[in-house]
Amino acid sequence: MTRTTVESRSRTAIIGFDEPFCVIGERINPTGRKLLAAELEAGDFSTVEKDAVEQVACGATMLDVNAGVVYNSNPDPNQTEPPLMTRLIKLVQQRVDVPLCIDSSVPGALEAGLEACEGRPLVNSVTGEEDRLESILPLVRKYNVPVVAISNDDSGISEDPDVRFEVARKIVERALDHGIPACDVVVDPLVMPIGAMATAGLQVFSLVRRLRTELHVNTTCGASNVSFGLPNRHAINAAFLPMAVGAGMTSAIMNPVRPQEMNAIRAANLLLNHDRNGANWIKHNKPQSTRVQSANGTRRRRRRRRQ
Amino acid sequence: MTRTTVESRSRTAIIGFDEPFCVIGERINPTGRKLLAAELEAGDFSTVEKDAVEQVACGATMLDVNAGVVYNSNPDPNQTEPPLMTRLIKLVQQRVDVPLCIDSSVPGALEAGLEACEGRPLVNSVTGEEDRLESILPLVRKYNVPVVAISNDDSGISEDPDVRFEVARKIVERALDHGIPACDVVVDPLVMPIGAMATAGLQVFSLVRRLRTELHVNTTCGASNVSFGLPNRHAINAAFLPMAVGAGMTSAIMNPVRPQEMNAIRAANLLLNHDRNGANWIKHNKPQSTRVQSANGTRRRRRRRRQ
Repeated sequence: MTRTTVESRSRTAIIGFDEPFCVIGERINPTGRKLLAAELEAGDFSTVEKDAVEQVACGATMLDVNAGVVYNSNPDPNQTEPPLMTRLIKLVQQRVDVPLCIDSSVPGALEAGLEACEGRPLVNSVTGEEDRLESILPLVRKYNVPVVAISNDDSGISEDPDVRFEVARKIVERALDHGIPACDVVVDPLVMPIGAMATAGLQVFSLVRRLRTELHVNTTCGASNVSFGLPNRHAINAAFLPMAVGAGMTSAIMNPVRPQEMNAIRAANLLLNHDRNGANWIKHNKPQSTRVQSANGTRRRRRRRRQ
Repeated sequence: MTRTTVESRSRTAIIGFDEPFCVIGERINPTGRKLLAAELEAGDFSTVEKDAVEQVACGATMLDVNAGVVYNSNPDPNQTEPPLMTRLIKLVQQRVDVPLCIDSSVPGALEAGLEACEGRPLVNSVTGEEDRLESILPLVRKYNVPVVAISNDDSGISEDPDVRFEVARKIVERALDHGIPACDVVVDPLVMPIGAMATAGLQVFSLVRRLRTELHVNTTCGASNVSFGLPNRHAINAAFLPMAVGAGMTSAIMNPVRPQEMNAIRAANLLLNHDRNGANWIKHNKPQSTRVQSANGTRRRRRRRRQ
């Protein structure tokens, strides 16, 4: 039974076939967040601190930390990302005690994050591209950490799921060549937007089943990508996640502050017997009151409406 | 590819592996609805008419019609159910044009319903009990209609899913002996409450997969049973349904007036490529406004909140 161990300073979490779904909070990422990017360039880390605390309070198992900001003052990420990653990791560790996922396309930033990080973080990510395999896997081995493997390679992202499966297999085999066991490779089979590719859901569910039964690896994905461009995205995500969990997916990089998606995951855990005595479900869905999300992202309590 | 054909006066619906999920509206059923039971005994059919129209408006593919009321004036269902079933079927057919599901444990009521019903209804249900098999299957054959097969037998409802699978196999084989093909048997593997049996979800998902791949039959269930006794039942149902659909379930007897569950099914259809161009999803989730459900069950439109 595959188990990927991740650790913070004092806590251990397991990504595994027989574990509650691992929610990796995606918010600490300046990509597409102009305000956050500007704050980071100005040395203001208040949003990062708030996002760290809020995501953990909402139930994130781990937090992704991405330092991929392009400074106006210095456009070279090889220079700017490593020190920013160090700063972010240290800051987040001061505020919360959950395992981290060090997220960068800059190898120097990954290494800076690995140096700064306590416990056993997850590295995000390696791909099937030759230069990535040979630059990232030695780092992963050196620090004895697990890694996210994204199933694209030098030919790009294939629309053929069989090709993506073979890329995943190649990464798992190459990792083994570097002394990294399959249980430390968490494969992202790549979720396409269903609005652009009608078979995107079928592909993912089928790939997750194969990755689990044939390669015996844990899986992850950028969950919200599936609903890109469609109305009422949260409702699509909230159906996609239980279906992916049911197909065998064991983690996702997602926004844990969204109650609809988080409750869908709690229900999936309950339905797969990964919530002992339904304790977590009942804790978050008390009959007398429910946590509800207001439009500006703050939470308040109100009387539960008649069902 | 298994296809079960059901028909109303002028419409055909297919329950099938490659079809949108078949929603069988459960509301026209006096069991547990004291007010409706009293109305029916008094000859008042206004709630039945309202429930028929509302369920179809909310997206039901078919309507279940159950006449299982115990009159204060006459407690013998063998006398009261057949004429009431005839009346209900005729009334519902006057108001809506969708295939019906004739639901009774009284063989005489099933036959009365079959006599009154236009098109090709679904009979609900036969079990693996010997007397039921030999009283219901000849009726099903005589009227050339499909039948719901509930996987309990003379020994009751087994908690062992392998036993329930074997009961389903026995019913499918006995149906064949009566000249009824497997495509006209829709198996209900029985959904237990997850609050009472922690493995209830795992059992259903596994049974549905086996029923589909080994017996090649369509499946159904009383979906809301899974959440019995737990808080926030709609959220559990809304995760259970996509997971069941993902495991291969092709229909459910459920309340289509509940928007959370219905949108979960629409999303599951979209994610399994059973919603061409996402047309049905977009129709029900327009960016400008969303249908929302108020506490008293009426619907209104309001501005969509910021996602």
